[in-house]
Amino acid sequence: MASIGNMHEDETGGRRTTKSVYEAILGGIRAGRWLPGGKLPSVREMGELMNVHRLTALKAYRQLADEGLVEAKYKSGYYVKTHEARAREPSLETEWDYKARSLYVNRSRLSDIHRQQVDYQMSEALIDPNLLPNAYLSNYVKQVFDLYPRVLSTYSTVLGDAELREKLGGFFLAKHGISVHPDELLITTGSQQAIDLVSRALAKPGDKALIERPTYSPAIDAFQQQGIALLPVTITPEGYDLDEVERLMKTERPRLFYMNPTYQNPTGYTVPAMQRKRLVELAERYQCLLVEDDVYHDIYFGGPPPPPLFYYDTEGYVLYIRSFSKYVAPGLRISVLAARPALMEAIAPVKALSDNGTPLLNQKIFQHYFFSKRLQEHVAKLRTALELRKTAMESSLSDTGWQWASPNGGLNLWVRLPDHLSVEELLRRALSRSLAFVPGSICDPLGGMNDWIRLSYSYLNETNIAEGIRRLVDIAEEIRSEH
Amino acid sequence: MASIGNMHEDETGGRRTTKSVYEAILGGIRAGRWLPGGKLPSVREMGELMNVHRLTALKAYRQLADEGLVEAKYKSGYYVKTHEARAREPSLETEWDYKARSLYVNRSRLSDIHRQQVDYQMSEALIDPNLLPNAYLSNYVKQVFDLYPRVLSTYSTVLGDAELREKLGGFFLAKHGISVHPDELLITTGSQQAIDLVSRALAKPGDKALIERPTYSPAIDAFQQQGIALLPVTITPEGYDLDEVERLMKTERPRLFYMNPTYQNPTGYTVPAMQRKRLVELAERYQCLLVEDDVYHDIYFGGPPPPPLFYYDTEGYVLYIRSFSKYVAPGLRISVLAARPALMEAIAPVKALSDNGTPLLNQKIFQHYFFSKRLQEHVAKLRTALELRKTAMESSLSDTGWQWASPNGGLNLWVRLPDHLSVEELLRRALSRSLAFVPGSICDPLGGMNDWIRLSYSYLNETNIAEGIRRLVDIAEEIRSEH
Repeated sequence: MASIGNMHEDETGGRRTTKSVYEAILGGIRAGRWLPGGKLPSVREMGELMNVHRLTALKAYRQLADEGLVEAKYKSGYYVKTHEARAREPSLETEWDYKARSLYVNRSRLSDIHRQQVDYQMSEALIDPNLLPNAYLSNYVKQVFDLYPRVLSTYSTVLGDAELREKLGGFFLAKHGISVHPDELLITTGSQQAIDLVSRALAKPGDKALIERPTYSPAIDAFQQQGIALLPVTITPEGYDLDEVERLMKTERPRLFYMNPTYQNPTGYTVPAMQRKRLVELAERYQCLLVEDDVYHDIYFGGPPPPPLFYYDTEGYVLYIRSFSKYVAPGLRISVLAARPALMEAIAPVKALSDNGTPLLNQKIFQHYFFSKRLQEHVAKLRTALELRKTAMESSLSDTGWQWASPNGGLNLWVRLPDHLSVEELLRRALSRSLAFVPGSICDPLGGMNDWIRLSYSYLNETNIAEGIRRLVDIAEEIRSEH
Repeated sequence: MASIGNMHEDETGGRRTTKSVYEAILGGIRAGRWLPGGKLPSVREMGELMNVHRLTALKAYRQLADEGLVEAKYKSGYYVKTHEARAREPSLETEWDYKARSLYVNRSRLSDIHRQQVDYQMSEALIDPNLLPNAYLSNYVKQVFDLYPRVLSTYSTVLGDAELREKLGGFFLAKHGISVHPDELLITTGSQQAIDLVSRALAKPGDKALIERPTYSPAIDAFQQQGIALLPVTITPEGYDLDEVERLMKTERPRLFYMNPTYQNPTGYTVPAMQRKRLVELAERYQCLLVEDDVYHDIYFGGPPPPPLFYYDTEGYVLYIRSFSKYVAPGLRISVLAARPALMEAIAPVKALSDNGTPLLNQKIFQHYFFSKRLQEHVAKLRTALELRKTAMESSLSDTGWQWASPNGGLNLWVRLPDHLSVEELLRRALSRSLAFVPGSICDPLGGMNDWIRLSYSYLNETNIAEGIRRLVDIAEEIRSEH
C-alpha cells in the first residue's frame, strides 16, 4: 500500500503551472479569501504562497487582468475588481442570475457527476443498499404506526420530537460522557440542513469562516451562498497546523470554523485527540465557533475514533452535527445538531422558517430502529463489510504508484494521481465508460488540488471495486501513453 | 350572522389612539416599509395615512424619538434611525443577537401561543386528527414498503421523486388545465419551506416585496429574515385595490408579491377571478413575481374557488405553491412549488443547500394515498365536516356584535372585536382559562390591526367550538364590564 509520507508538505511543489496558479487565485476570489476591492498579495508574495517563480505568479495575474477579474493599479499592485466595476463592463448575466450563478459553480458540477447512471459508482459516498437492513426496517415502520396511530396527523415541534431528543441526550451521555439537555438538541433533515441553518443563523454576509482544505463541497456552497468569506486550513493525516489556525483566528477573526475532523470527507483523515482539546481552547480564546460535522463517527475500522471536539467544550463554542440515518436508512434524513442555549436560541427560529420542523414520521421510525439491539448488530456488520471494501480498493490500487493515506473509517479514499495526469481528462473518459469519481478540485475551497480524486468504496461490492479500479487505471495508462 | 359591510374602508377610522399610531409606525419600520436613515412621512402625511389628527401623529413620533427609534432633524422632519446610530447608544444586545432578534418578534409570539396546552384550541389552523384517515394511511404505508422495499435506503433527487412530479403534472393539467413539466415542479417539506426557498433564491437584502395585510405571519418572518422590505397591500372580502397595487408596482418596483388569494390566511377572503387575470398582467408589465401560496384550495364550501393566478400566467411570472398534505396527513409535510425554468434554475440549488431533497419515504406515501379514490372520498367528507364547524362557530358568535365576512373555504374566521376591547387582555385571560386564539397584530406586517383576532374552526368539534366561543364571549363581557 502506498504511503503518503510527507507529501502534503510540498503539495504545491514546483510542478505548478501558470494555469494552476491562475485557477488557485480565481478559486480564492470566488471563495471570498480576497474580497472585491481588496488588494491581492504582491507578485512576490503570491509566488511564495503558491511555491512558484514570481514570473509565473505575474503571468497568472496578467491573465486574470485580461479577463477583467482583477485590476492592476499603478505602483500599487493587483486588486480584486468590485462587482460594480465588473458590472460596468459588458456581460451576459442578467439580474436574475446574480445569486444562483456562484452557487452553481460547485454544486451543479457534483450533481452532474452524481446524476450519471454508471456501472462503477465511486463518486457518491452512499452506502450500498444491500448493506442496509431494508426488511427489518419495514417491521419497525409498522411498529411505529401501531404505537403512534396519529403520527401522520401530527406536526413535529420545531426542535424535533421530545421523546427522540430525550433518548439522544441519553445516548450522548452514555456513549460519550457528554451531558446535553434535550432542548440543546435540534433534529434536522440530514446534516446538510444543519450546516445550512448554522450558516444562516450564526454568520452574516462579510463574515469570515475557516474551512478545511479540502472539504465537503456542499459546505463551500452553503457558506458562499450566505456571502461568507472562506479561509482554508489544510488538513493532513496528522490534522491541522495549529499555529496556522491560531494565526488565522487571531488576525482574521473568523466567526466560525467548519470542520469534519473524524474520517474527514473527502480525505478520511482524523484530527488527533490532543489537537481537539487545543482547538477548543483556541476557539474560546478567539471566540470562534467550531462547527463539528461528525458524519462518519460510527463507521470506524479497528478501534473507535477520539472523542468529538464537543466532548472537550465547556464554554459552548462547539456546535456538534451528528448524522445517524446515513448508515441506518439514508432515506429517512435524520441528523441532530447539538448547541448550547445561546446558540440554539438563534438557530431554532431559522429552522422554524425553513420547514417548521422535520417530519414526525421520519423521527419516530428512526427512533424505534436506532435504539434497538438490532441496530447495534447491524452497525458492527456494516463496519466489517465496509472495511473489506476499503481493503479491496486499496489492494487494487497498490501497484499504481498513486498515493493515499489509508483511513481508519469513513467511506472514501483521497488519492493523489501521478504528475501530469489530467483529472479532467480522466473523468471525461471514465464517465464515458460507465465509471464515476469526484475530482479533487470540487472539494477545494480554492478550486485547486487538481492532482487529487475522491474514490468512495461504500457503494460497490469487492468484485465491482476491483473491476472499477482496473478500468480506471487502464484509462490513466491510456492517457499517459498518448503523451 | 354579522356582515362586514364596508367596514374595511374605515378600518383605521377615528378610533386610533396615539399608542396604536405609535405601534403602526414601529411595525412599519420593522417591516422595512421605512428604511434606516430614510425620511418618514411628514406629521401631516402620517396623520392622513393613519386617519388621525396630526397632533396624534406628532405625539407618536415624539414617543418613538424618546425611545431612540426615530430622530427629528431640525426643519426637515422625522427619520428612521440607522443601526449605526442606535448602536452608538447603550444597549443590552450583543453581537450574538443581531439576527435572531428581529426574527423572534412575531415567530416566538405565535409559537408561545401554540405551545400552550389548552382545551379550546382555536389558534392553530390545524385539522382535527379525528377528521383524518389515520387507519387507511397505515395501509398505504405498508403498500409503499411492498412496492419500494428500498425506499429508506434511497435519497430523493433535489427536485423530488420523478414519479410523483409526473403525477402532479398530470393532476394540474386534468384539474386546472395548467400544463406544467415535471421539471417545473419542486417537492418541498411543507409550504413553509417553499416560501423560505423563494425568499432566499429570488430576492436579495434591500429588495422590496408586496405582502397582504393581514397575512400569514411566518411569511413576514421569512422575508424579513432575508432583509426584504415589506410593502403592505390591504386585502378585503372584495380582493385588493388594484390601482394601489399598480401604483406600488410602478413606484416601488417590488421584486415579488407574496399572496394567499384563496380563502386567505387569516381572513378567509378570496380574490375574485377578474382580479386574478389583471394581477398577472400587472406582474408582467412591472416585472414583479407573484408568489401564490394556495394552501386551502381544496377546502371549499359550496363550489370550488376561482382558478389559481398560475392558470392565467403565460409569461412565467407566477410561482405557485400548492399544499396537499395538510388535509391528507400533515405529518408528511409535502407541498409542491411550480415555477418556470428560469426561476426553477435559481431555486433548485437553494433547495439542494437546504436539505438536498425532501425525504423519499414521505413523497412515496403521499403519492400512493393522494392519487387514490379513497382520497377523493375523504376530501369530500372533510369539506362537509369543516363547513359544519364553521357554521357552529358563526352561530355561536351571532349575538355578539363582533364582525366578520363569512368565508367560502379554509380553516379560519377573521373577526373584528368591538371598540375598546383590548385583544391583549382578552388573550391573557383566555389562555389562563384554557382557550387560545391568534391576535390580529401578529398577522399584520405593520404590527397594527389591534381590534382583530383569528379563530380557527378546524381543530375542535361543534360542541367544543360552542363551549369555547361561549367562554371567549364571557371573558370579553367581563373585561367590558370592568371599564
